[in-house]
Amino acid sequence: MTLAQSIDVLQRTPAILHSLLDGVGDGWARGTEGPATFSPFDVVGHLIDGEETDWIPRARIILAQGPTRRFEPYDRFRHRSRNTQRTLASLLTEFAQLRSANLVLVQSWNLTEQQLALEGEHPSLGAVTLRQLLATWVVHDLGHVAQVARVMAKQYKDEVGAWIPYLPVLTDHETPRS
Amino acid sequence: MTLAQSIDVLQRTPAILHSLLDGVGDGWARGTEGPATFSPFDVVGHLIDGEETDWIPRARIILAQGPTRRFEPYDRFRHRSRNTQRTLASLLTEFAQLRSANLVLVQSWNLTEQQLALEGEHPSLGAVTLRQLLATWVVHDLGHVAQVARVMAKQYKDEVGAWIPYLPVLTDHETPRS
Repeated sequence: MTLAQSIDVLQRTPAILHSLLDGVGDGWARGTEGPATFSPFDVVGHLIDGEETDWIPRARIILAQGPTRRFEPYDRFRHRSRNTQRTLASLLTEFAQLRSANLVLVQSWNLTEQQLALEGEHPSLGAVTLRQLLATWVVHDLGHVAQVARVMAKQYKDEVGAWIPYLPVLTDHETPRS
Repeated sequence: MTLAQSIDVLQRTPAILHSLLDGVGDGWARGTEGPATFSPFDVVGHLIDGEETDWIPRARIILAQGPTRRFEPYDRFRHRSRNTQRTLASLLTEFAQLRSANLVLVQSWNLTEQQLALEGEHPSLGAVTLRQLLATWVVHDLGHVAQVARVMAKQYKDEVGAWIPYLPVLTDHETPRS
């Protein structure tokens, strides 16, 4: 992992989600994979939560190397109550603004290899480095992009007739994993 | 499925892939999930093959309702020899042009419900309708968007340390399915 490679992907995510979702009908935006799974609307809200409460606050804890390096637990469902009155368009715009500001901030840190190797304490996973946190941010983005595409695909599961076995995206995560 | 819903997604795919891939380094563009799996570069080539040899030729066979309604088998690996000298940027542009022209064509057909219910014969799956073919085109796109994001994510599998169990995208399709 290099920081430049990671930022190259992280800066793409708002445009990717905009291309996938801006102006789609509610059937695409609000469809899920079943009870207790995220719709594309939920995913954008969840990514906003990450920008506000996860990646940057945790990076700051690691960089500070204070007496307590333990991260706050992350609330995967904060977005559910936060965004009840919001439109998808406004969430996409908000996410793009938060992401842009966070990447300006990370770049302003001019992180060294020594800083990337500093550790924090994940509340359930234990010791993790800043390098691993930043790589996880990238993978988390890409995982949720894949999820949005998969959830949208599943809205047509009953429409493809005999083609189902050729379309593995329709049966991925039949038991929810994310 | 409505034709308008389907076209809304189909017309997004070139911009989604552009956002994901335009200008990325070779590590992101050429990485795979293992032997005999597609890189993001391969996926764009495969989608071009679909525009040229799959969706529209098969729709024409169905609409013609001639004595033979059996589709030509589709070559999932045509792109491998076709695109050896090509850049990813040129493939993204070519895909966007082909997709745009194909959607103009499909809209020019002004398909009726009766036409959408016409059948063709898939060489291994048997009878399928034009409605199912068009829905499959949409799901196929979204499945390959999910694949590109997943394959990119896996390039960082060794970088996330203890976070692996929280990132299911890293272990999806450990046995290749698409």
